[in-house]
Amino acid sequence: MATLPRCLSGDSAAINEFIDKFDIFLFDCDGVLWSGDHLFPGTVETLELLRSKGKKIVFVTNNSTKSRPDYQKKLTSMGIPSNVDEIFASAYSSAIYISRILKLPGPKNKVFVLGEKGIETELKSEGIEFIGGTDPTFRRDITPEDFTGIADGSLLDDNVGIVLAGLDFHVNYLKLSHAYHYIRRGAVFLATNLDSTLPSNHSFFPGAGSIVIPLINMSGRDPIALGKPSQAMMDSIEGKFQFDRTKACMVGDRLNTDIKFGVDGKLGGTLAVLTGVSKKEDWEAKNTIAVPAYYVDKLSDLRG
Amino acid sequence: MATLPRCLSGDSAAINEFIDKFDIFLFDCDGVLWSGDHLFPGTVETLELLRSKGKKIVFVTNNSTKSRPDYQKKLTSMGIPSNVDEIFASAYSSAIYISRILKLPGPKNKVFVLGEKGIETELKSEGIEFIGGTDPTFRRDITPEDFTGIADGSLLDDNVGIVLAGLDFHVNYLKLSHAYHYIRRGAVFLATNLDSTLPSNHSFFPGAGSIVIPLINMSGRDPIALGKPSQAMMDSIEGKFQFDRTKACMVGDRLNTDIKFGVDGKLGGTLAVLTGVSKKEDWEAKNTIAVPAYYVDKLSDLRG
Repeated sequence: MATLPRCLSGDSAAINEFIDKFDIFLFDCDGVLWSGDHLFPGTVETLELLRSKGKKIVFVTNNSTKSRPDYQKKLTSMGIPSNVDEIFASAYSSAIYISRILKLPGPKNKVFVLGEKGIETELKSEGIEFIGGTDPTFRRDITPEDFTGIADGSLLDDNVGIVLAGLDFHVNYLKLSHAYHYIRRGAVFLATNLDSTLPSNHSFFPGAGSIVIPLINMSGRDPIALGKPSQAMMDSIEGKFQFDRTKACMVGDRLNTDIKFGVDGKLGGTLAVLTGVSKKEDWEAKNTIAVPAYYVDKLSDLRG
Repeated sequence: MATLPRCLSGDSAAINEFIDKFDIFLFDCDGVLWSGDHLFPGTVETLELLRSKGKKIVFVTNNSTKSRPDYQKKLTSMGIPSNVDEIFASAYSSAIYISRILKLPGPKNKVFVLGEKGIETELKSEGIEFIGGTDPTFRRDITPEDFTGIADGSLLDDNVGIVLAGLDFHVNYLKLSHAYHYIRRGAVFLATNLDSTLPSNHSFFPGAGSIVIPLINMSGRDPIALGKPSQAMMDSIEGKFQFDRTKACMVGDRLNTDIKFGVDGKLGGTLAVLTGVSKKEDWEAKNTIAVPAYYVDKLSDLRG
């Protein structure tokens, strides 16, 4: 069994030692900085404290519906100062993976997208061709002609070599059918992330994993996931920011995404906050998926 | 390892012995009697042969989009004589389960339906109240007001005590969100069937399992399935037709639904046909899910 995490809340000496240990802090956002539309008190001041001590901050989110500029707007609207280069979202991570790691030769490197505008923006920024996504052609009921043309391939694009699935508020039977058939024909199967639920309005709604899992179930194939806890995302972050992993700390509220992401990535530290999904009982459980190195009741406890 | 099945094709003596052994034959349809819109030659004559020998015939299908009258129309359109009472589809099986086995006390016994008209017809025929289904109110994009009202419960119906999910060609994010929230609130979780794919146009499309699996993944709960191979369906069939299981034979093309259904139900026999999904290699494999007692290359081989 892993050592239980050290509680930092209320222990100024331990907090200073903790902060001094790291050069870069990777932050999960929802459940850490805010919940839904509610900014936690002290969030801005805590980030300022870290910046004032020369720490690098990166906002790491599995949100796949937003591009980096969209996500910066969200941070701004929450009152959190940031710049676009501090933001690493799963749509961006996916685009980077396709263009810089996968590098399929053309012309059979087009992407069929199950997802929203944020994915399209990031794919465009990397010069990647795609179909599907928010195209109104795919936002409709399936017809008998679709069944025929998808089954015989006449309605499929021979140049699609990749299926990228993320959270799609406009998911439908037609898009699932197209995605499935491209996977059957051998397309590389990518997922922005596999979160089963999306925290929203102090509750939960279907997450990207809910869009991806029918395709997994139908095809019998597992996608490469580009969000936390996938190390493909950690590699992209490291490639971009060039940091020493022993001097990096992942801060998050979910053991199965954030903390596992930091532990698997062999970062110098992981900090759990108790303002989101996971609770102390979760890492104290025998079958816990990951144990953080530190925890605080709430992020602003780092102000000492 | 189970005994390998006996091949009946081309062996008149074995065929006669086989037919004499049973009073009732439960038939899977697609892959057995026809494939897509193509009726296999000799299907009608084979069914006639069995009827002429006094055998009872039941058409057992996991198709959840059609009511029994709809399904009879399909049989008629394929040129297969039948009557409605010979048809047992998963929508009907689900309605029977809700009204005669589950019997939740009112008023909290309303059903939220993820599915098509066939389910609604069968629920109505059993006098079961429902919402969702083909209601155009649910066939639209989710709005911010939906997120708020679903999360706080103000848009949910307090009398919903059951979620029934089946194949829905109009599945969308809004309906999945409603279904998930009813399950979270404690509704009984039922699925017409769990087939991941739907055979169509000589290919495969998303099946009922593709509609159900996001809900399983989000809620961490498994539904009670009312289609093959669930024994809840076998119990309903037996309850309706009152037969001796040792004198019954299940005929089908899929080991994981049809043959498993017959084996688990301890029927006197199971007959696999090789005109559909499963092949000889499947039951010869070490980890086969079920082994039929008999097989024929095609159903019409039973004509001797």
